[in-house]
Amino acid sequence: MAYGKQADQDSSKAAIRALSDNFGEKCSTTLVMREQHGRDESSFTVPPPDAVVFAESTQDVVDVLKVCATYSVPVIPFGVGSSLEGHLLAVHGGISLDVSRMNKILAIHAEDLTVTVQPGVTRKALNEAIKHTGLFFPIDPGADASLGGMTATRASGTNAVRYGTMRENVLALEVVTANGEIIRTGTRAKKSSAGYDLTRLMVGSEGTLGVITEITLKIYPLPEAISAAVCSFPNIEAAVRTTIQIIQMGIPIARVELIDVNTVRMLNKYAKLNLHEGAMLLMEFHGSPTAVKEQAESVQGISAEHQGQAFEWATTPEERTRLWTARHNAYFAGVQSRPGCKVISTDTCVPISRLADCLLESVAEVDASGIPYFLVGHVGDGNFHFGYLLDPNVPAERDTAEGLNHKLVRRALSMQGTCTGEHGVGLHKMSFLIEETGAGAVNIMRIIKKALDPQGIMNPGKIFAA
Amino acid sequence: MAYGKQADQDSSKAAIRALSDNFGEKCSTTLVMREQHGRDESSFTVPPPDAVVFAESTQDVVDVLKVCATYSVPVIPFGVGSSLEGHLLAVHGGISLDVSRMNKILAIHAEDLTVTVQPGVTRKALNEAIKHTGLFFPIDPGADASLGGMTATRASGTNAVRYGTMRENVLALEVVTANGEIIRTGTRAKKSSAGYDLTRLMVGSEGTLGVITEITLKIYPLPEAISAAVCSFPNIEAAVRTTIQIIQMGIPIARVELIDVNTVRMLNKYAKLNLHEGAMLLMEFHGSPTAVKEQAESVQGISAEHQGQAFEWATTPEERTRLWTARHNAYFAGVQSRPGCKVISTDTCVPISRLADCLLESVAEVDASGIPYFLVGHVGDGNFHFGYLLDPNVPAERDTAEGLNHKLVRRALSMQGTCTGEHGVGLHKMSFLIEETGAGAVNIMRIIKKALDPQGIMNPGKIFAA
Repeated sequence: MAYGKQADQDSSKAAIRALSDNFGEKCSTTLVMREQHGRDESSFTVPPPDAVVFAESTQDVVDVLKVCATYSVPVIPFGVGSSLEGHLLAVHGGISLDVSRMNKILAIHAEDLTVTVQPGVTRKALNEAIKHTGLFFPIDPGADASLGGMTATRASGTNAVRYGTMRENVLALEVVTANGEIIRTGTRAKKSSAGYDLTRLMVGSEGTLGVITEITLKIYPLPEAISAAVCSFPNIEAAVRTTIQIIQMGIPIARVELIDVNTVRMLNKYAKLNLHEGAMLLMEFHGSPTAVKEQAESVQGISAEHQGQAFEWATTPEERTRLWTARHNAYFAGVQSRPGCKVISTDTCVPISRLADCLLESVAEVDASGIPYFLVGHVGDGNFHFGYLLDPNVPAERDTAEGLNHKLVRRALSMQGTCTGEHGVGLHKMSFLIEETGAGAVNIMRIIKKALDPQGIMNPGKIFAA
Repeated sequence: MAYGKQADQDSSKAAIRALSDNFGEKCSTTLVMREQHGRDESSFTVPPPDAVVFAESTQDVVDVLKVCATYSVPVIPFGVGSSLEGHLLAVHGGISLDVSRMNKILAIHAEDLTVTVQPGVTRKALNEAIKHTGLFFPIDPGADASLGGMTATRASGTNAVRYGTMRENVLALEVVTANGEIIRTGTRAKKSSAGYDLTRLMVGSEGTLGVITEITLKIYPLPEAISAAVCSFPNIEAAVRTTIQIIQMGIPIARVELIDVNTVRMLNKYAKLNLHEGAMLLMEFHGSPTAVKEQAESVQGISAEHQGQAFEWATTPEERTRLWTARHNAYFAGVQSRPGCKVISTDTCVPISRLADCLLESVAEVDASGIPYFLVGHVGDGNFHFGYLLDPNVPAERDTAEGLNHKLVRRALSMQGTCTGEHGVGLHKMSFLIEETGAGAVNIMRIIKKALDPQGIMNPGKIFAA
């Protein structure tokens, strides 16, 4: 396969023959298996991969890459298939390399607050496995994603305002490079100045530079106390102003999520909640009982200054779950509000000082378009998601939604923000990436890709065109 | 110049002619200026650079790089010269590119907790410039280093246990690449999944991939309250055990520094302090008055469990300064204890669970060698520095110290640690880097270097041999 072209059929067949010889039943070419590995949560449809191989060890990954390098056939790493931007799709054909069976917790170092896992371990499985230590892994992108996938897309979610993203929480990796070599990108030391930061080069590289086979992560003490709160505001601006003041005062809030009034109405109607109709903030505080109480009181005061009302507190797990129901159900309430709809999710992130402007202008635009939507935001980080609810039988709606997303991204970029806060570039944001960083930076990315994967076999056609 | 060889004299002369034509007095070839730029805080002596150019703008940097690319002459970025591992030394000749005049604060975005600066701004100048906003930049490597240099070496220091290192605190960069192109590596968004993390690839790249011309940094609210404490322990192990327990309980301590008993004795003798003779922890807490008080009380309790004594508190700035005098004077007390000595500083970092073992074995080794030393540690991060105090007239001492450092690094690596926590690789740690990461990872670094700087003109011979 020439760099950037479709794998030729003869090479692909030869590679699959070699893989079948080597992997037996762990190599599958059935249509059902290929189709399962040829779609993700994105709205793209492309032909499925030519085969699926289930790796059970780093050596399996090495073996697959050596075969694929020999025949110049693309390799697409696959975790649980929860990515949102078409990362898993076989746009240039090739082999889906499923690492979900590499699901061992390799080491728990409780004293050091680190854990080393294989890439197929999901975040919930990790938390289950370390529960007995009194520690937890905070990154929560919603889906029970694989930690390999979360690393590859630089995922984050609701806890990032306090605990950071995968960027801040991956300490070291084992990676198999395009030619089948195993490298280690770091140690378990908490900090290091030892050469180029290969760990962070791999975090967010979406499978285009190598296959992640081990991940050493930071973990955290479970907070002694957790309390949650919800508060309703007259408008988005008041909710955002409240958030800015919380952050500026250095209150170490663990979560602060926004739901707009339109979404609150959906929740009331479809999830049978009885929420005050307004822009809503959902918050969580972690710390000692005293610290949590103090944080909560400060935030209640700040909220009141911004006309916050219907303030509700929860400290027990059951009450907290009840309060957070609104956030957890936002997606489903949105989908139920328009039966049979297809959701397209946006993912811009802007400096928090521009967040209210960005949201208000974008909400006005969506409202004017007539496309139904829900809106949720990790407002402490300036990251938010519109979920456009589209009738799949009306192609014009998709065009309208794409147009809205284009305007939204341009607005975010004009405000010194990014086209993707946490979902990644995949197929969907390739042109936005160039607008965001400029052709110069993308060219540097291409040069790095070309240097580390000269045949272009690692998940080609993602982040930038192959 | 072929990759990795000394710049040939004709090329160098031609480049200097072109630079003089372009830069006039901003290009200097006087011996005194070259010598000033040909040494740093390391103990290496090599010939000075062939010329020094003072850049006053990004365009100046572009112009220098274009000339140097044309003539294949090395370029060595220079901030204030406080690096410790020979980063600035002209081992392959070439031009020292002094960016200290690029010292403008370009933007303060107080609401977003970000600031954008030129690389010649020092950390103290930044803090002075943002004082009026109630915000501060916490990374404190000791020296009043330039922020460009701190970025290039992935610096950290005493506050890293709470606020992270330059790795966590650089949001985005403007970089001039080896061929004189200007690229931007990120936006002001707090998080992003937009392609390869070029920001963190540049952080810690020691001037070998490009010249940093703008830095966007995170800043933080000045804590409402700060309190400091010192406590004396019967031995290093008790001090380290105390630290581990503090971290494990999730107490957000801002600083926790160790001074060993030998160094305490030096401080008592040469800095006229009256400290309890034992292993000493110095600590600082940041937060609301209530939170700080609570943290401090918890820590006092933990210390007592580990036979901590002579516990002292300070909350006013004056009292805090007095308590921290010991830490600030450790270097000078060490130097004064052996007049005329030369200091070689080590910089290993290990997982905190191995810290006591690593320290105890290493202290025993230095004691047995007869080389005088001081020992300070950022123990919350597992990072510590021996300062070997060498008689420059006794070459054998240098060999002994190098031997001690070799053993120390090997010990740290065997404990899953790193050869450099915060000083960087430079010239001194090149072979250790290979031991630490393996040849495979260093080969990936070389491939990246070669791809981004095919002529090898960017600070050649640092991190790995040119």
